[in-house]
Amino acid sequence: MLITNIIEIIKEGNSGYINSCIFENIDISGASSLESASKNQISFLENNNKIKDSLNITKASLIITSDNKEIMTFLKNKRISSVIVSNPRIAFAEILNEIKVNLKIKPGINKSADIDKSSTIGKNCYIGSNVFIGEKTKIGNNNFIFPGTVILQEVEIGDNNFIYPNCVIHPNTIIKDNCVINSSTVVGSEGFGFIPNKGKWVKMPQTGGVILNSQVEIGTNCCIDRPVVGNTVIGEGTKIDNLVQIGHGVQIGNHCVFAAQVGIAGGAIIGDGVILAGQVGINNRVKVGNNVVASSKCGIIADVKDGAVVSGFPSIPNKSWLRSISIFKKLPELAKKLRQLDNK
Amino acid sequence: MLITNIIEIIKEGNSGYINSCIFENIDISGASSLESASKNQISFLENNNKIKDSLNITKASLIITSDNKEIMTFLKNKRISSVIVSNPRIAFAEILNEIKVNLKIKPGINKSADIDKSSTIGKNCYIGSNVFIGEKTKIGNNNFIFPGTVILQEVEIGDNNFIYPNCVIHPNTIIKDNCVINSSTVVGSEGFGFIPNKGKWVKMPQTGGVILNSQVEIGTNCCIDRPVVGNTVIGEGTKIDNLVQIGHGVQIGNHCVFAAQVGIAGGAIIGDGVILAGQVGINNRVKVGNNVVASSKCGIIADVKDGAVVSGFPSIPNKSWLRSISIFKKLPELAKKLRQLDNK
Amino acid sequence: MLITNIIEIIKEGNSGYINSCIFENIDISGASSLESASKNQISFLENNNKIKDSLNITKASLIITSDNKEIMTFLKNKRISSVIVSNPRIAFAEILNEIKVNLKIKPGINKSADIDKSSTIGKNCYIGSNVFIGEKTKIGNNNFIFPGTVILQEVEIGDNNFIYPNCVIHPNTIIKDNCVINSSTVVGSEGFGFIPNKGKWVKMPQTGGVILNSQVEIGTNCCIDRPVVGNTVIGEGTKIDNLVQIGHGVQIGNHCVFAAQVGIAGGAIIGDGVILAGQVGINNRVKVGNNVVASSKCGIIADVKDGAVVSGFPSIPNKSWLRSISIFKKLPELAKKLRQLDNK
Repeated sequence: MLITNIIEIIKEGNSGYINSCIFENIDISGASSLESASKNQISFLENNNKIKDSLNITKASLIITSDNKEIMTFLKNKRISSVIVSNPRIAFAEILNEIKVNLKIKPGINKSADIDKSSTIGKNCYIGSNVFIGEKTKIGNNNFIFPGTVILQEVEIGDNNFIYPNCVIHPNTIIKDNCVINSSTVVGSEGFGFIPNKGKWVKMPQTGGVILNSQVEIGTNCCIDRPVVGNTVIGEGTKIDNLVQIGHGVQIGNHCVFAAQVGIAGGAIIGDGVILAGQVGINNRVKVGNNVVASSKCGIIADVKDGAVVSGFPSIPNKSWLRSISIFKKLPELAKKLRQLDNK
Repeated sequence: MLITNIIEIIKEGNSGYINSCIFENIDISGASSLESASKNQISFLENNNKIKDSLNITKASLIITSDNKEIMTFLKNKRISSVIVSNPRIAFAEILNEIKVNLKIKPGINKSADIDKSSTIGKNCYIGSNVFIGEKTKIGNNNFIFPGTVILQEVEIGDNNFIYPNCVIHPNTIIKDNCVINSSTVVGSEGFGFIPNKGKWVKMPQTGGVILNSQVEIGTNCCIDRPVVGNTVIGEGTKIDNLVQIGHGVQIGNHCVFAAQVGIAGGAIIGDGVILAGQVGINNRVKVGNNVVASSKCGIIADVKDGAVVSGFPSIPNKSWLRSISIFKKLPELAKKLRQLDNK
Repeated sequence: MLITNIIEIIKEGNSGYINSCIFENIDISGASSLESASKNQISFLENNNKIKDSLNITKASLIITSDNKEIMTFLKNKRISSVIVSNPRIAFAEILNEIKVNLKIKPGINKSADIDKSSTIGKNCYIGSNVFIGEKTKIGNNNFIFPGTVILQEVEIGDNNFIYPNCVIHPNTIIKDNCVINSSTVVGSEGFGFIPNKGKWVKMPQTGGVILNSQVEIGTNCCIDRPVVGNTVIGEGTKIDNLVQIGHGVQIGNHCVFAAQVGIAGGAIIGDGVILAGQVGINNRVKVGNNVVASSKCGIIADVKDGAVVSGFPSIPNKSWLRSISIFKKLPELAKKLRQLDNK
């Protein structure tokens, strides 16, 4: 794709086009990081990158960057073409979507797929090898369901969804539009509900379902459990990384981001725009407000207000935790000092 | 199902029937939470629920509850039929099992299943699409093995087990009766055993097996490893949630409950009735006594006595941990006070 | 296998043969732990085993042990044959590989495997039931690819690899030689990259790949993500346990060992010979030096120097952490003492 074409795409995109400088309108055939880019490749640069080292060695032919005079001068001196935008990362994402295509899959239903007669499949879908689709399932248009995925029965899937290989979708799951479910993830598995009775555990049947709203993306090897009654719900645009556990009956708002290995226990209620870093845990029935940020490994065991930034276990405000943890390292000194004072 | 039939089932069950009050013997066709129940649905109520709010808005036609005068008066005034039992949750579980059926699966062996000639399948089993069953495997009666599950070879499975889709059962696994293995879980995978030798890692072959005793339930995307020699054993009635790691040679007692993302390292020995909350870790070869309770994210690195309640990392008695953690928050104040005293 | 044959194998192996003592050259048909070994079985013994208890009860016919006079005398008195080596564990591993074979799989391509015409399979491979192999994939010689595994397209696999059931290998993955990928693990899944934009998350396409160098072993239900551009790389001989998350673009050195449930965020750079215990987390872009050891549950959020031993969250030198954590338990006493001094 010619540099002029790339600039047209960026102008029509959402990265906030500012300016561009073309030394030679060559064909760009790939994308890479600054360090490993070769000629005819595009790369991108942000202010917080370790700029100078990488710029000195890059062989990229086109660089997307932000409005930074020092960088622009450097690129001009090196005669590297550039595009200046407000958000270089978004421009790079838009260009990657055009010049690199990961999977070349054509629509069609593989003959080894086992689809119940009572189920319906919309137009333009790919149903891969050995996919199983049980009774009374409705699948909309433009869905890609990859080999080995099992959709048990009574599932509703809207349009434009990707369900990667070896996933399992249990009954009473609704997946709306433009969702991505990565490989080997299980949606609608039974919630973990057992009632103690005379030293044993009696199973509480989990008869509810799961609703994934539009634009939800779920990572690899995740578990989204269904509750006793009602639904586990994940709000529009929420993105979930790998190996995450969403317990039964959890309600998650819109546009949240959860990193890998997060665990959310049953019945927790999470607001909109919540960011959970890796390995965070949330206790059952806890309410987490809108736009809360929880740092990695933190454990939330009580309700958290809108906009709070929390850390530690049990979680406390991040600022308070930073002060305490800095003293934790000095505890031996403190204890010694205290003994000295006490001995006086 | 008529309310009078529901009451018969509860009387014959294990929830401790006390009393009932029927305003109209209507047909109950579903179950739900108090908040979302509609007419013709059953719900349940415990003392620790946020009673008044939910009761005021419920439209349920029948409510299972405990022997609480205030609630009973309220229900009578609202003309809602009720069943009074000692344990409402158990009664609700029993009724859910009757009126809601998650999966309607009929026995039968799917023609796409690949079953070795040397293996045997008992009566009344469901073997789903694309199931693979290798050599010398014995499968008893009334088992449900869902699509995509792979049973490698030399596995013994008793009666009345559910193995959900895309599980993998490795050789030398014994699964007794009435077990549930949820989707995409792996039983009998090789233990993680490597011997350091001149800066590299030599593999110790894992030739042992796994024994799951009766009534064991294992969640989704779990790993139960096999040891070098001997067996990894999970005791009768133990229930394990999603994304749990059970290392090679671990011995787990009866009627334990492990929440999601727990990890138990190789050779640990866990007693009966042990409760581990989410994301707990247990070091290799540690012995955990009977009825120990470990709170979430706790790390057990040394033996724990029967009945102990532990928290933190490394785990200490819960009471002690609660006191220390409450002071952790005040460390900056303490440090400041100490400096002031020191300066005097 | 006769004891004399076993001794020949050990002599030719890497355990450092020293001596042996045969009472009767019988056939050894199995291996076991000291406690559960029966007649005609081999077992092994290290100095740090709880020697006396186990030796008193063992029925093993042959024991591999180290050069310890007390043990040798004991074995002679009990008339148990013995082999003395420098590293009994390695000798036992070598013998286990000879006398116990877990899986008896013959090469051959199952007729239900769905392999694209543009892909090639080398000599002597096993391709199990329902394996899917997409376009332009090259598979070398002597590979074992088990039932239900999905290899999407444009993957390169060298020689002598084992890929266990229900794994998923995404495009642009290179697996070199002698690797093991355990069941239900996903290699090359898309990295978790989203850019915040006006309260929503814009997806950064992940167009890179994954390289697993030779002798890499990966556990069960793991996720190895691919990056935006470039590759996620795992170095030669590195061994990874179950439920581990390797984020996009992570670079891991040679001969590392990571225990179960470790999580490494995107872009982290890990040196050679690094040992991470269970549930350790590493932040994105952090550099971890060669031969670093991180104890269980530790969280590394900043660069760590070569050879450091770290613990806690955020991680600090292990010795320092041990001192601080020992005082953590005594915080209530310290606070009390401080109040007393303050009141004086």
